[in-house]
Amino acid sequence: MAQQCALLVTPVAANDVRESYRDTFRFTAPDAAALPLTNNAVQRGDGIFETIGVFDQHPHQLEEHLQRLANSAQIMDLPEPNLAQWREAVIAASRELPMGETMLKLAISRPLASEADSAWILGSQVPDFSDARQNGISVVTLERGVASDAGPQAPWLLLGAKTLSYAMNMAALREAARRGADDVIFVSTDGYALEGPTSSLLLRFGDTFVTPAPQAGILHGTTQLSAFDFLKQTSRNAEYRLVRSEELFDADAAWLLSSVRQASPIRSIDGRAKAIDRELSAELNKHLLAPG
Amino acid sequence: MAQQCALLVTPVAANDVRESYRDTFRFTAPDAAALPLTNNAVQRGDGIFETIGVFDQHPHQLEEHLQRLANSAQIMDLPEPNLAQWREAVIAASRELPMGETMLKLAISRPLASEADSAWILGSQVPDFSDARQNGISVVTLERGVASDAGPQAPWLLLGAKTLSYAMNMAALREAARRGADDVIFVSTDGYALEGPTSSLLLRFGDTFVTPAPQAGILHGTTQLSAFDFLKQTSRNAEYRLVRSEELFDADAAWLLSSVRQASPIRSIDGRAKAIDRELSAELNKHLLAPG
Repeated sequence: MAQQCALLVTPVAANDVRESYRDTFRFTAPDAAALPLTNNAVQRGDGIFETIGVFDQHPHQLEEHLQRLANSAQIMDLPEPNLAQWREAVIAASRELPMGETMLKLAISRPLASEADSAWILGSQVPDFSDARQNGISVVTLERGVASDAGPQAPWLLLGAKTLSYAMNMAALREAARRGADDVIFVSTDGYALEGPTSSLLLRFGDTFVTPAPQAGILHGTTQLSAFDFLKQTSRNAEYRLVRSEELFDADAAWLLSSVRQASPIRSIDGRAKAIDRELSAELNKHLLAPG
Repeated sequence: MAQQCALLVTPVAANDVRESYRDTFRFTAPDAAALPLTNNAVQRGDGIFETIGVFDQHPHQLEEHLQRLANSAQIMDLPEPNLAQWREAVIAASRELPMGETMLKLAISRPLASEADSAWILGSQVPDFSDARQNGISVVTLERGVASDAGPQAPWLLLGAKTLSYAMNMAALREAARRGADDVIFVSTDGYALEGPTSSLLLRFGDTFVTPAPQAGILHGTTQLSAFDFLKQTSRNAEYRLVRSEELFDADAAWLLSSVRQASPIRSIDGRAKAIDRELSAELNKHLLAPG
């Protein structure tokens, strides 16, 4: 991909005394060798990340992403990130990106004593998602293999953390492609709809909008938070609750929400057509892409 | 760690026409920057690995590890590895390691079109495991969050592949440490004992040795295969079957088996003491460490 940028950083814990991101971050070419083979992200996906949508050099939902980064760090027993430094670094990296829609990926690997760099930001251009946003996507439901209440009982399953161990999420997307679909809705073993491999689920039943409750081992979506803000601003009902997988087919409309593709209306689930709401999808994407 | 070595390789698919590992592999310093931030192992733990124990420069169970690497590649929709090249490269890398017990980690990340290097071997020294092998380890049982029959129904869960997405396995080991234990036995939601985060389970009931059946979403252990060889050579019964978690406490003896620590007798499970069989543990480790 052209016009990428990359920033490498030394471990930036909350007790780091250096005040400016310039003291810890440095720019590097995105295709340059950056990490040794011993790095814990390389060795075992042992780290966390955030993907931030950037529009005209403006990072979206920056505070929500930084808060989730800190939350993932806590679940993963990683040092508390210095959010002031990350904030500055994200803004600096955003200014290196071209205008239009781009993205930044922030990552922290579990620091090694021997290691200089265990955190980085990678900027890149994004594909044109206008077709998905306007004409919708087809999805399949896939078993996530876990019960909806597995998270709180077993924090070592890391269900609420955005970790670098995403091989299964990628495998689910390949399975969707094999079935001729664009994306996935994960379903729990006890029959609840959860989320997509890289997205949150939004459903409409009549005049009420619903997202599966994030406490059920579901990652709390930053784009989903922004969508709920929009829905409430426009006097619509928006709520979290458990959603049975069969309700997916009953919903009047459905979307997958993510930081880069934004809101994609779902036009079919497991081959069953669903009406898409073009007008609301357009309004929602306009809100999500607006600097705010 | 001192005296490491690293080999970096270009993608080595089965249809690669270059005959020698020297055409594709090159040595690099293990602490040198080797991979760009765009690499798929770095980005999302999207790759596979094998850890091979090496003793006096001799890689153990090399064929079994290569076969499992090929099996993981298949489950992960990765190009078929050129095992002849990997075999040569492992032998060459082993010769760079010091005498005594060392290890090699082989890894393949999902290749990117833009990428020169998506496979590597990292050599390193290992801690002294004699205490664990002789005096045993304490373990706790932890929920793995999946049912014992989840694997075949949902191949995208990648339960039979050794992927680089090991954050959960590492989190389970941290949970064990928090509980004052050395290691973990994972238990399925339907009450079966599975494996450790980085090891296979071996149990003795009277004169029969048992390992949980690897078809139940359990990684087939290479060290476990070698242990079964030893048990059969010494006229003992060894079998695979489903093992209920409560049977862990009934077993006359238990071990965790892995490629580097080898056979560690279990001296307690969830705080309940278990007798350890020093003589058999010593015999077993002698077999596992012998060049074969």
